[in-house]
Amino acid sequence: MDLSLVFAGTAGSVPTARRGLPAVLLRAGGDRILMDCGEGTQRQLIRSVGLVDLDAIFLTHLHADHWLGLPGMLKSFDLRERSRELLLYGPPGTAALLQSVRATYGRLGYPLAVIELDAGDAIEWDGYEIEAFNVAHRGQAFGYAVIEHDRPGRLDPDRARELGVTDGPDLGRLQAGETVDGVTADQVVGPPRPGRRIVFSGDTSPCETLRAQASGADVLVHEATFLHADLDRARQTGHSTARQAAELAREVEVRLLVLTHVSQRYHPREVRDEARTTFPATEVPRDFDQVVVPFPEKGAPELVRSELPVP
Amino acid sequence: MDLSLVFAGTAGSVPTARRGLPAVLLRAGGDRILMDCGEGTQRQLIRSVGLVDLDAIFLTHLHADHWLGLPGMLKSFDLRERSRELLLYGPPGTAALLQSVRATYGRLGYPLAVIELDAGDAIEWDGYEIEAFNVAHRGQAFGYAVIEHDRPGRLDPDRARELGVTDGPDLGRLQAGETVDGVTADQVVGPPRPGRRIVFSGDTSPCETLRAQASGADVLVHEATFLHADLDRARQTGHSTARQAAELAREVEVRLLVLTHVSQRYHPREVRDEARTTFPATEVPRDFDQVVVPFPEKGAPELVRSELPVP
Repeated sequence: MDLSLVFAGTAGSVPTARRGLPAVLLRAGGDRILMDCGEGTQRQLIRSVGLVDLDAIFLTHLHADHWLGLPGMLKSFDLRERSRELLLYGPPGTAALLQSVRATYGRLGYPLAVIELDAGDAIEWDGYEIEAFNVAHRGQAFGYAVIEHDRPGRLDPDRARELGVTDGPDLGRLQAGETVDGVTADQVVGPPRPGRRIVFSGDTSPCETLRAQASGADVLVHEATFLHADLDRARQTGHSTARQAAELAREVEVRLLVLTHVSQRYHPREVRDEARTTFPATEVPRDFDQVVVPFPEKGAPELVRSELPVP
Repeated sequence: MDLSLVFAGTAGSVPTARRGLPAVLLRAGGDRILMDCGEGTQRQLIRSVGLVDLDAIFLTHLHADHWLGLPGMLKSFDLRERSRELLLYGPPGTAALLQSVRATYGRLGYPLAVIELDAGDAIEWDGYEIEAFNVAHRGQAFGYAVIEHDRPGRLDPDRARELGVTDGPDLGRLQAGETVDGVTADQVVGPPRPGRRIVFSGDTSPCETLRAQASGADVLVHEATFLHADLDRARQTGHSTARQAAELAREVEVRLLVLTHVSQRYHPREVRDEARTTFPATEVPRDFDQVVVPFPEKGAPELVRSELPVP
């Protein structure tokens, strides 16, 4: 399964000339799932990978900078005659919020399912699940963990041949756990390989739930609203500093830390450099940059810079 | 008084990679007034002339593509600690709309005055007024006319000297209409010179009120959602074709026709060419382009192309 992220908006609270409001597109196999939908997200997608027919949108929390792009996007899907159901997941209050802005997008020609999650709820997708967990922001706020199912172990074809198994369908049956001509799967198939894990912090101060979810993650997408010099403001507002994000990433040994929700107070390079002092495998994407997440045996998660012009 | 427009968003309904949703910034002397505020307008301003401290926002109508940028912008003004009152004008229903999305921007640290206008209401500014008039769209919709006050006539200093008036303050008194040493103003001062007029059509089918307001306008900013081949769709949806806009401009002899609210169905060049066949003085601005409107004796209204990069 191909697994990658497109950073459609990497600013926090207020957009800048170069950074739109929060939104990350998760591409998992054929699924297209949006994490948050700040004002202008539909256009950020149009400007980069296209306004793809999303399967679902997950909101981390209901502060306006994380969802104000939703009504316009819902309407645009309607104007181009979407018929397929769209799933909208969010914390408690999401349904009431949608109802309150119902007039902005009016009657839609496709079903919109609004599903409020509780912490711990996991939505099953084809080959992975997305689990909501509580984080420490102002009001109820979620992070989300994208957890790929464990993959079957690797089959050793040489060992299978030694045991008299012929090439072809029998190898597939062994891989699937069956016994073939007295040869059992565990004789030729290694242990299950753990699936990949991508964790989104949402907006949060450092917290235990995030630490637990991020443990060993391939990619941790973490907010970094402040530099550590402004730690007090970070605490007051329920946000993190770049250093705090890096400390968490180091403690729980993520493979790649990706910082977002950056403030115009700082140059993004300052944010990156502060984090890298603690955790070198840190990136601060620009809008439209991607992060590809290969199977661990194929390589490390990697930032791919966009070649699109940024104003 | 300097008078110019900045086209912050020139798409209709759905943004494109190159065009944001409707918003035009009117700069009249020191005043900064926004006409409509589609999703993403705050960022369009940030990307071009900066998110200026607006004096007022006028909404032409309450369809979502014309105002969804408002809550985020209100919030951004608050985050940077605006204290000055902001005036929001719109058709009946504006106050209820703002109330319904109140939760999106929360408590603001500056006064926001929401003023519902009736057709014919004119708001007085320093040296000009802005008048709302009904247009023919779905539901209540306004166009707006920016009407500069007549300027005093031109004083002929040679004629004044012939009549024995000395240079200096006496000339100013004559210009102001006073009599000096038996010389009356009308002996040396020409007739009042008409002020400039900029008319915004809003979204509309051709209609008499617009025709009357646009008569002799220096600039008519007119929607052109369709080409004339799609006249039926224009009629059904309460919009205009480029040709209809051009016909109106020709009939009422505007100086410059500026087409906006262009659809991604067409290449903007098609829109421009269709209109120019009927009315050559037509422009179709790109986002961030400006139109400057000098005093008539100083030159014609002119499109000034932006040099900002457009994606």
